[in-house]
Amino acid sequence: MNPNDDRESQQGDAARNEALWQQRFGERSERMRASEIRELLKLLDQPDVISFAGGIPDAALFPQAEIASAYQAILAGPDAGAALQYSVSEGYRPLREWIVRHMRALGVPCGIDNIVITSGSQQALDFIAKLFLMQGDTALVTWPTYLGALQALNPYEPRYDKLPIDSNEPASALAAAVIDRARAAGSRPRLAYLVPDVSNPTGRTLDRAGRERLLDLIDALDIPLIEDAAYQALRFEGTHEPSLLALEIARRGDIEQTRTLYCGTFSKTLVPGLRVGWICAAAPVVSKIVLIKQAGDLHSATINQMVTHRLAESVYAAQVEKACAAYGTRRDAMLDALGRHMPKGVEWTVPEGGMFIWLTLPPHLDATILLAEAVTSERIAYVPGGAFFPDGSGRNTARLSFSSASPARIEEGISRLGRLIAGKIAKAA
Amino acid sequence: MNPNDDRESQQGDAARNEALWQQRFGERSERMRASEIRELLKLLDQPDVISFAGGIPDAALFPQAEIASAYQAILAGPDAGAALQYSVSEGYRPLREWIVRHMRALGVPCGIDNIVITSGSQQALDFIAKLFLMQGDTALVTWPTYLGALQALNPYEPRYDKLPIDSNEPASALAAAVIDRARAAGSRPRLAYLVPDVSNPTGRTLDRAGRERLLDLIDALDIPLIEDAAYQALRFEGTHEPSLLALEIARRGDIEQTRTLYCGTFSKTLVPGLRVGWICAAAPVVSKIVLIKQAGDLHSATINQMVTHRLAESVYAAQVEKACAAYGTRRDAMLDALGRHMPKGVEWTVPEGGMFIWLTLPPHLDATILLAEAVTSERIAYVPGGAFFPDGSGRNTARLSFSSASPARIEEGISRLGRLIAGKIAKAA
Repeated sequence: MNPNDDRESQQGDAARNEALWQQRFGERSERMRASEIRELLKLLDQPDVISFAGGIPDAALFPQAEIASAYQAILAGPDAGAALQYSVSEGYRPLREWIVRHMRALGVPCGIDNIVITSGSQQALDFIAKLFLMQGDTALVTWPTYLGALQALNPYEPRYDKLPIDSNEPASALAAAVIDRARAAGSRPRLAYLVPDVSNPTGRTLDRAGRERLLDLIDALDIPLIEDAAYQALRFEGTHEPSLLALEIARRGDIEQTRTLYCGTFSKTLVPGLRVGWICAAAPVVSKIVLIKQAGDLHSATINQMVTHRLAESVYAAQVEKACAAYGTRRDAMLDALGRHMPKGVEWTVPEGGMFIWLTLPPHLDATILLAEAVTSERIAYVPGGAFFPDGSGRNTARLSFSSASPARIEEGISRLGRLIAGKIAKAA
Repeated sequence: MNPNDDRESQQGDAARNEALWQQRFGERSERMRASEIRELLKLLDQPDVISFAGGIPDAALFPQAEIASAYQAILAGPDAGAALQYSVSEGYRPLREWIVRHMRALGVPCGIDNIVITSGSQQALDFIAKLFLMQGDTALVTWPTYLGALQALNPYEPRYDKLPIDSNEPASALAAAVIDRARAAGSRPRLAYLVPDVSNPTGRTLDRAGRERLLDLIDALDIPLIEDAAYQALRFEGTHEPSLLALEIARRGDIEQTRTLYCGTFSKTLVPGLRVGWICAAAPVVSKIVLIKQAGDLHSATINQMVTHRLAESVYAAQVEKACAAYGTRRDAMLDALGRHMPKGVEWTVPEGGMFIWLTLPPHLDATILLAEAVTSERIAYVPGGAFFPDGSGRNTARLSFSSASPARIEEGISRLGRLIAGKIAKAA
């Protein structure tokens, strides 16, 4: 037997074993698939690749010295034992109190019972999906939407439909159409999700009128609306629109009467590696999420919540300012480079903040196929847009992140991408 | 209108609002209920209450200085940026490599692809349930079992049946009975769960013969077996039984051929507040869990994984020794106090390690009813045993934790509990 036979037989064993496990897994496991974004993150390790793929903050902006001091102070102080011990599922109370004040400043009057700490807002999405979505229920999302939201919702086996944020039809008609389509599929609308501010993946912000129309629709459907506010603070210019939760409170007079579930995070403003986010919502929702948190992982790491609290108190505003300045410069560099290097027929969004520009190629180009060549021959990376569509459409789109490359690398990377795309367009012509 | 009317009307509003949300929640939310343990944890804040309730480690044992140094070294070193950045869902590689060596030392030959980091083993249970359990599937658990496991499994809406670990009947007959009962309920066995070593809540260890019989049963049922090894290292005396995963590998020759999913944690040996645990299992299971982790919270806090890795390398063995010595003394104190203060008709387990003693009262006594009096008049707390039974049976049982009170407080607390129970028995006679 030669070594190749041996290798083939081992691969056969592995495949058989995987098939065996597939039978033992629950049916929902079929909706758990590998993410292109996460696979691509591995490319970041190769220094010669210019990556516009991962939507990750620039580590050079992290308040490293302040974080080191915070850990030291906590571990040398009277709370050291508590910092390392089991704790309550709701989260560290002083941090929740800081968030209450932060939300009030955003026009959201609320109390401590409206706040629960989560391990980043990714966990908030998982827990909300666990609370609301049953197999076959309809989840309304923008087309495209945040890939991580699709991944969080998928295990609960929803059906997806488009959240109609661009329509001027009356809310009652939009709601009726959504309900009809759901009914035809044996389903019912169960929740809506969107990133209203400088969104992932498009960089787009929903304007004031659009927000009011969306609240009308949610009202007509009587379903919760997940407001993913991950990038809300990262606005470089333009108007800070009021959060959907703030607008709904203004309509109803009280957070307890609202249906908006606001998901916040410190990942984009302070650091992502501590894994601290929160949900702000009506108390009955928060108390169920606390039970889900308790059953899910007991609580988020206590010491990280304490460190986050100290940072929030001391450097939050300064960090937001620093991040906006840095990412603003890089966005400008990318917009400038796109203007100079992209051939005719390619379009892109002009975001007022966040980390992303959304690229639309001519319809005959497939950004997934293009990526292989981009990585191997041009040493650049991005995320193909199809990943952000529940149905895999949008294959001629791509997400470019400007958050972690320097302006010079952005210029170089976009010029390579422009050359590659121009070549494809010329070849097709 | 007097202030009472006002308060009543507010309570009425809150109740109506909660009922409204109840209709919006998914049906599975009915199985998410508040935990007596966690509610009781709040009592720990009152210094005059002697609590045997929470199964929490003693904060005085935490390697605080080593933890402080580890944070400092990481944040002053070349990995500071990575420590605070987004990271891979599998977990921090050097920590996974340490765990591979640790598992090998436990008789479990495995590789890096068999290890995924979770936020404590509570998250491991949630993720495994998410992977395997569909609505109505049968989960086999001991009667009583770890309350947190029931909480983790409940949202996936299983049916529970008893894991028959005390029967000497042949595995084929036991399996047939389990399958028959499941079929009669329109269900199928989907997984089994137990804490085989000095368990939560009973302190009991499954002996070697019992382990082999259990593996026969799992074999006959062809379902995964969750081995919750949370307390495995905390053995003060007696024989370290091989882990179920080690025994199954010995049978089959290779971890890839096993069905045991080993859940480990640093919560009982190092500290719980960093929230670091792991799953060790066949690679097809681990790779699905990595996807669930990615969708669930992206990854566990990077810096805490790095700190845990440093502690594991430097103080793991010393911490285990320290914990065993301290908890061993307290177990002795509690057994001694039980022997002197408990009236006739009360029985308890004699654990060889862990944190718990399981108390059985005369059948007519209800430990939940007794608890109210224990807390208010005797200022002592424990967990009523009914919480650990899927069907709420075992109402005359209680879990006593000896991990966090001093021997003197244990003596005082057990003497109060003995007096209370003796009074109840005398009254009933």
